[in-house]
Amino acid sequence: MAKEIYTAALIIIGDEILSGRTKDANTPYIAEKLNESGVRLTEVRIIPDKGQTIIDTVNEMRAAHDYVFTTGGIGPTHDDMTTENVAKAFGVELELNEEAFNALLAYYDDPADITESRKKMAIIPKGATLIENPVSGATGIHIGNVYVMAGVPRIMQAMFDSVLPTLVGGKPVVSRSVSCNLPESEVADGLADIQNRYTMVSIGSYPKYQNGKFGTTLVLRGIDEAALAKSTQEVADLVKSLGEDNPIIV
Amino acid sequence: MAKEIYTAALIIIGDEILSGRTKDANTPYIAEKLNESGVRLTEVRIIPDKGQTIIDTVNEMRAAHDYVFTTGGIGPTHDDMTTENVAKAFGVELELNEEAFNALLAYYDDPADITESRKKMAIIPKGATLIENPVSGATGIHIGNVYVMAGVPRIMQAMFDSVLPTLVGGKPVVSRSVSCNLPESEVADGLADIQNRYTMVSIGSYPKYQNGKFGTTLVLRGIDEAALAKSTQEVADLVKSLGEDNPIIV
Repeated sequence: MAKEIYTAALIIIGDEILSGRTKDANTPYIAEKLNESGVRLTEVRIIPDKGQTIIDTVNEMRAAHDYVFTTGGIGPTHDDMTTENVAKAFGVELELNEEAFNALLAYYDDPADITESRKKMAIIPKGATLIENPVSGATGIHIGNVYVMAGVPRIMQAMFDSVLPTLVGGKPVVSRSVSCNLPESEVADGLADIQNRYTMVSIGSYPKYQNGKFGTTLVLRGIDEAALAKSTQEVADLVKSLGEDNPIIV
Repeated sequence: MAKEIYTAALIIIGDEILSGRTKDANTPYIAEKLNESGVRLTEVRIIPDKGQTIIDTVNEMRAAHDYVFTTGGIGPTHDDMTTENVAKAFGVELELNEEAFNALLAYYDDPADITESRKKMAIIPKGATLIENPVSGATGIHIGNVYVMAGVPRIMQAMFDSVLPTLVGGKPVVSRSVSCNLPESEVADGLADIQNRYTMVSIGSYPKYQNGKFGTTLVLRGIDEAALAKSTQEVADLVKSLGEDNPIIV
């Protein structure tokens, strides 16, 4: 029987995110597309460019989830150490991949331009397959349930989009939302009651703060569309009963 | 003797981040300010609103780091479960905090407005102290080496700014950067050589991709300002020797 729930973890590898220099832009993209494919992103870890940390995190995550995605650290420089440590996590050797090397040959006009650093990008774990990179020379790889991708959003997105159709997922998670101008403390009691009656729906309450006034967006998520529709109606009725004239239901 | 290196972990708690609905905006703010205070953010975990996950993650992180910060899940609704699970992580009871309750009394004109849901915001772990929230009724708390803060960036920042002066850190991490229009594979070999000679400096290479052309920003970080200045000069000389006319050094 097919599984009901498929989960994924994302490992964001890079000192530049942890230093605050670069803002992660990949999480929302991956999260939304996974949801549409019936896979839930249930854990994200941001870790430094450090070999043992990469090995430990990859091994912990691939045991705990159906799919693991990594971003960052696959380029040609000394601080790009994802691929070699994914190989170590799987306990396999690295080898020059012919297909990846040919891609480098095609990318650089002169074979003499393929320095040792550039060649590194064609060296992948034994048993891994390539994830095409239509933008630059660095290669994404797929080994076991782990997908190693670039950190640059444009390249990551191209890689992820090519992987996505190959994933097996469950029913997609659908979401509805009800926005109102009430502070969340006002809807809290009624909302808890609705949540208690709809266990198949997960209801989140998110405060907004604009122009010195509080408002709340109530987000309902689940795979059962009928329950979702009914509970969304109840939430809309709740905020109306509390004085909201015009809830925005999406 | 004072420690050389202080580390911190950030735990971002919230289904809304994992679903892709909300983009985390707190990591860069916390990372940069910690750096200035000589504390390095070395790990970020984004986890769902799930009791046992919160307990396990808080306990793992507080054992591994000097400081742990959490964001999200401290409001009045059913999906706000951070505070109660931090109490469980520490194995302490929850109790009504007089100061927090007085803050609620001051916030709401009519004591009858303090519903059970709102009262929940004044119930904190035994032994915890409050982190002031100048914006809303939800209370931040400090217990052991863990700081529990709001998820809304404006409120989180106010809480974090009030905590920051109380942290003990090491020397601040200073960074310099050299930007050039060379692809990173061109600087890789020379850069690795510089990195090998400056072990006290951490050098990162970050590709840029603009208007169909690759460029690279090389970021040098460390606590030894003399080594940082010398290595930055070497990186600038490297990119000039490779044909960059006008590296931007910051």
